[in-house]
Amino acid sequence: MTSQNQATLAVSTVIFALRPDEASGLMTLWLPLVRRIREPHLGQWALPGGWLPGDEELAAAASRTLRETTGLTPKYLEQLYTFGDLGRSPGTRVVSIVYWALVQSDEAALAAVGENVQWFPADRLPELAFDHNRIVDYALWRLRTKVEYARIAHAFLGETFTLAQLRDVHEAVLQKPLDPANFRRTVEASGTVVDTGQHLAGARHRPPRLYRYNDSSRLADQGPLGPSIG
Amino acid sequence: MTSQNQATLAVSTVIFALRPDEASGLMTLWLPLVRRIREPHLGQWALPGGWLPGDEELAAAASRTLRETTGLTPKYLEQLYTFGDLGRSPGTRVVSIVYWALVQSDEAALAAVGENVQWFPADRLPELAFDHNRIVDYALWRLRTKVEYARIAHAFLGETFTLAQLRDVHEAVLQKPLDPANFRRTVEASGTVVDTGQHLAGARHRPPRLYRYNDSSRLADQGPLGPSIG
Repeated sequence: MTSQNQATLAVSTVIFALRPDEASGLMTLWLPLVRRIREPHLGQWALPGGWLPGDEELAAAASRTLRETTGLTPKYLEQLYTFGDLGRSPGTRVVSIVYWALVQSDEAALAAVGENVQWFPADRLPELAFDHNRIVDYALWRLRTKVEYARIAHAFLGETFTLAQLRDVHEAVLQKPLDPANFRRTVEASGTVVDTGQHLAGARHRPPRLYRYNDSSRLADQGPLGPSIG
Repeated sequence: MTSQNQATLAVSTVIFALRPDEASGLMTLWLPLVRRIREPHLGQWALPGGWLPGDEELAAAASRTLRETTGLTPKYLEQLYTFGDLGRSPGTRVVSIVYWALVQSDEAALAAVGENVQWFPADRLPELAFDHNRIVDYALWRLRTKVEYARIAHAFLGETFTLAQLRDVHEAVLQKPLDPANFRRTVEASGTVVDTGQHLAGARHRPPRLYRYNDSSRLADQGPLGPSIG
């Protein structure tokens, strides 16, 4: 019946974007992290986030804290999971409602970058503050087990994309190379993408066809809850 | 930085079981509800749940409050979603971390039933307290969009089941009749179930084959988080 001694509520956000790996040139998942400027975990990297004010909706708080720390304003944020284990934060108990989003590289390019905000490759993260490595691991697992990769490609790449770009997305998410011919057959048989009849501009010789995702524009349909727009 | 004026944390649980509809005899989704014995919403039906104590893990609190109100102790509870809209509870803000589970009819039969605990068919619920109708709608939608129905059948039916029982589960979840021959072809092609080589005991003439789910025993693999055992 009382809120005393319960827990402090926070929101955090995991944002993935695709970028070429600096060494290999292959498309890789990256995410922005914020350096902590106070204790606990002073100086360590953490997911963007902050406390939940009592008068702000959950998704709005996630969106605002993300914007304030990184400058990012993704079109859609979705709730990922709530982390509330005892002992995940020293001192007080903190229950963190975590949101996530996939952003296109042009959105990602608008992010603030500085001494205290940097992008890291998802598979080579430093030791993060609190249980944030575990949160990222969970987000990566959810991304990898998502059935509709065409939808994910849509979120990363935008309205239209080539099959090679779609394969890049699969390879980045699954972290393994895929055979181009098998990949094309599987995608064409799946019915999840539609040939737009258009071709990639700029390519001179045999420009590749452009496809689009054949359904909703959202990362994951939330059904009766509708989209979480921050 | 402060927990004052944030919100009160609660846990609630949506438990689905399959039962024959009293009128039609068809398998239907049912869930247990608890009548509220205090304001707000005194006398209305609500999901089983309670406040989150500051020193109890989230899943443990969901499991305990479920057991205390209904007598149910499902093998696995999984986190469904966190509902925290402003104004979802009169007076104070309440953020509810909602868990869900599918239980077999023998587990469901162990539930306490009385004046203040009753099972209702999921598609004919009364007007529930707070936003609990919306929570059940969301849980039903998640159930219907789950890809692996064999996994769901496993949770509802146990280790082995016939194709007719599996079709019952699909029909109950999707709320529409399915053609038996098409259903059999689709399931056999999917590779999600395995023929055990055994037959249903008790049937005298052409006893139907028993199948089992060909993977994990959990409703939904939670990946790096592991199962939520209350």
